[in-house]
Amino acid sequence: MTSYDSLLTELRSIALLESCGHVLGWDEQTYMPPGGAEHRANQLSLLAGMVHERATSPQLGDLLASAEQNEKSDDPDLPSAANLREARRKYDRSTKLPRRLVEELSRVCTLSQQAWVQARKDSKFADFLPWLEQVVALRREEADVVGYGDGVPYDALLDEYEPGMTAAEVTTLFAGLRDELVPLIAEIVDSGRQPDISILQRSYPVAEQRDFGTAAATAIGFDFHKGRLDEAAHPFCSGFGPGDTRLTTRYDEHHFPGAFFGTLHEAGHGIYEQGLNPAEFGTPMGTYASLGIHESQSRLWENFVGRSRAFWNHYYSSAKQTFSTALADVAEDTFLWCVNDVRPTFIRVEADEATYNLHILLRFELEQPLVSGDLKPADVPAAWNEKFTQYFGITPPTDAMGCLQDIHWSGGGIGYFPTYSLGNMYAAQFFEAARRDLGDLDEQFAAGDFAPLKTWLNQNIHQRGQQYRANRLVEVVTGERLAYQPLVNHLREKFSALYGL
Amino acid sequence: MTSYDSLLTELRSIALLESCGHVLGWDEQTYMPPGGAEHRANQLSLLAGMVHERATSPQLGDLLASAEQNEKSDDPDLPSAANLREARRKYDRSTKLPRRLVEELSRVCTLSQQAWVQARKDSKFADFLPWLEQVVALRREEADVVGYGDGVPYDALLDEYEPGMTAAEVTTLFAGLRDELVPLIAEIVDSGRQPDISILQRSYPVAEQRDFGTAAATAIGFDFHKGRLDEAAHPFCSGFGPGDTRLTTRYDEHHFPGAFFGTLHEAGHGIYEQGLNPAEFGTPMGTYASLGIHESQSRLWENFVGRSRAFWNHYYSSAKQTFSTALADVAEDTFLWCVNDVRPTFIRVEADEATYNLHILLRFELEQPLVSGDLKPADVPAAWNEKFTQYFGITPPTDAMGCLQDIHWSGGGIGYFPTYSLGNMYAAQFFEAARRDLGDLDEQFAAGDFAPLKTWLNQNIHQRGQQYRANRLVEVVTGERLAYQPLVNHLREKFSALYGL
Repeated sequence: MTSYDSLLTELRSIALLESCGHVLGWDEQTYMPPGGAEHRANQLSLLAGMVHERATSPQLGDLLASAEQNEKSDDPDLPSAANLREARRKYDRSTKLPRRLVEELSRVCTLSQQAWVQARKDSKFADFLPWLEQVVALRREEADVVGYGDGVPYDALLDEYEPGMTAAEVTTLFAGLRDELVPLIAEIVDSGRQPDISILQRSYPVAEQRDFGTAAATAIGFDFHKGRLDEAAHPFCSGFGPGDTRLTTRYDEHHFPGAFFGTLHEAGHGIYEQGLNPAEFGTPMGTYASLGIHESQSRLWENFVGRSRAFWNHYYSSAKQTFSTALADVAEDTFLWCVNDVRPTFIRVEADEATYNLHILLRFELEQPLVSGDLKPADVPAAWNEKFTQYFGITPPTDAMGCLQDIHWSGGGIGYFPTYSLGNMYAAQFFEAARRDLGDLDEQFAAGDFAPLKTWLNQNIHQRGQQYRANRLVEVVTGERLAYQPLVNHLREKFSALYGL
Repeated sequence: MTSYDSLLTELRSIALLESCGHVLGWDEQTYMPPGGAEHRANQLSLLAGMVHERATSPQLGDLLASAEQNEKSDDPDLPSAANLREARRKYDRSTKLPRRLVEELSRVCTLSQQAWVQARKDSKFADFLPWLEQVVALRREEADVVGYGDGVPYDALLDEYEPGMTAAEVTTLFAGLRDELVPLIAEIVDSGRQPDISILQRSYPVAEQRDFGTAAATAIGFDFHKGRLDEAAHPFCSGFGPGDTRLTTRYDEHHFPGAFFGTLHEAGHGIYEQGLNPAEFGTPMGTYASLGIHESQSRLWENFVGRSRAFWNHYYSSAKQTFSTALADVAEDTFLWCVNDVRPTFIRVEADEATYNLHILLRFELEQPLVSGDLKPADVPAAWNEKFTQYFGITPPTDAMGCLQDIHWSGGGIGYFPTYSLGNMYAAQFFEAARRDLGDLDEQFAAGDFAPLKTWLNQNIHQRGQQYRANRLVEVVTGERLAYQPLVNHLREKFSALYGL
């Protein structure tokens, strides 16, 4: 066996062990009885420790170095080159972190998250502040240890979620997006037109929602022979490995869009996981490209497909039949408008397709100075509210509705937020390319045919794993560098029609 | 830290890792999509290999030897002495097995089980025979490697499931039991009386069965804050560790007893798991005493409590309310008789409380000569049918209804069957002792009060872990050596009343 083959064998074995933790994590969120929490924490901590030990072992380092010697190639896109590149990136990042910092981050983030839950409940930022200060300090230290070349410290954190992306690139993209989005949203608000979204809060029985959502997830291509849909308080998708991908959603009888678009969203993630090459499981070539690319797949099915007129051309009669009481007097156009209602609101996870991106931009614009040291954690609420008022024209009445709303920072997730809007941009650009390649997608959707799009995504994105970094993948697939215009074009076109702009 | 403390730390850590496999095993039986089977097998095999490596490591051997030097004690019942005794037993057994034999057993038993599934479906013993021959040969080899002192090879296999028990003791106990049971069953058959058990096959809606069974499991003391009840094709109970014990059952709308008594049975196992001392998790003092003792806890709640007149004094009105259509015209006495119907049948897992033991005896009487070499696997069907006709007065029409019915031998489980009837004997003897200690149990059950019995079991059995071997535990708890008479007394008393003997 060559050192390269031995390297892949070891990576697969580590990934297999890691995937055991995914099963336990999924069970924790779906079925675990409350009394099992402490034992589960012990199990997960043991597995994480074992995975970390193997992923940073000198033996793995030796294998990697030896494989790099023997497998040298001039073509960086070759599977072996991609595997070595990403294995090296991950190994270096992991081994650069001193054990003390890893343990301190884990301990502080666990406690910080508990403090955040209470602080948000009480809407008392002061109670969360000491934790935010510690989290920011530790992750700034991490950025220094990991390094960021000629860039800024933020790059080191962003790179964990979106390998190869820089703060400078994001800043440019987001600035362009903001300059188009703010006036578009203003036009919508100024139009004075608003659908009566109370029809989405009528009675939608949970059992029917479950069946309807499952049928739609199946139709767009999620394979229930190789996956499941369960309930969880905080919906997520978890790919355990080949043949087993788990989706979760949450139902509210009086809020139709939550579970339905949530299911499509998670199914989008799930279709990506199911589309990875099973023969490459555990190696970079069998791993998703980045969190932004992952998000592009969920947003594409949720928004570009699920909230399209063509989709409801196909599904509305079935929806009317399923929810015959709630939708009896609702015309298809009205329904379509309701599920595409745009209005400035305080909570990101409830935001519509257009304003959502402003929520992300705002966070990114606070995260950068937090990491550079230009913004003190204590000044976050004021900065948040000022920026929010500027972008949305409304001011959060409490910190719980403002800077305390998200879980990310409390758990150490700084540098993660940008991937959400990058995902929207990737999705728009991919969708535009798919439309070019596949012809009239609307006609296909209206006929309930989602297979061509799914196959296109499988071939162009999923099966490539980490062959390309996200930025390069976009170029390879669409022929263009990543840009914000496709997303803006999509939003402007859709909402111009709905709001008569 | 003393070497003894270090030993316990390592044992706990191994058990924690092993318990991750339990979560994956439970998920495999309850929620895993079909496509996940191969990946799950890889995950479980990896975990099992890691556990085996640590459980047989020279480091663990050194720790054990050192702890034995330093913790010597004259009192074999002291927790430390019990921990060392059982850790030594497990370590020696595991390390005696050469890796080749372990792997061969694992491989052959997996393939053998697949072959058995098909052979049973086709009722073709000949297709299973080559596998049975390999399994028997491998386990005979195992017995030789493990050793059995002055005993017989069968002892080495039995010892895996029922530490300290010998074939000679089981033979004596089972002979006595058989000599009492065969005439008792004959008397019941000769009485010519039979309840109309078709009333148990009326419509019992699954949702109502679930609620009714859950309420009963809760009432007898299974803590749903620290456990769950789910569905599985082959019901089982799995204790993941402190605070998390999972039960499973299966529902058939037209067979009331299956799920209900199955739930009580698994809840009995679950109450044992929940009653183990959480502070001792992973060490022998926090581990169930033996499979026979485990079975005694399930049979006790299923049969001695759940099929008693007193239990239905309390529950029948609620059953009648829940299953108002099915039970409208059924008197309590009739119902009680139906759930205690005794008649010779072919399938062990559907057998009643009395004939069940004959099914076990028969298997034990074939297993012994199989392991000694006196019975050739090829001669199993003839030997089975001859013995079956002798015990039950009926002859299996096919091998699927006869020697092919059980999964155990195909998976290598030889020496396991006796624990089922040992469990019944332990249960009877424990129940008799509990009755002595707790006064009128019938009155308590009839009032729906199961707490005194549960607490008694917690204190006398569960919390002792492996402080005593099963045989000694029976003596400590009941003041008597294990005997078959309490079980016979229980059966004779119950069925005399029901059948007017």
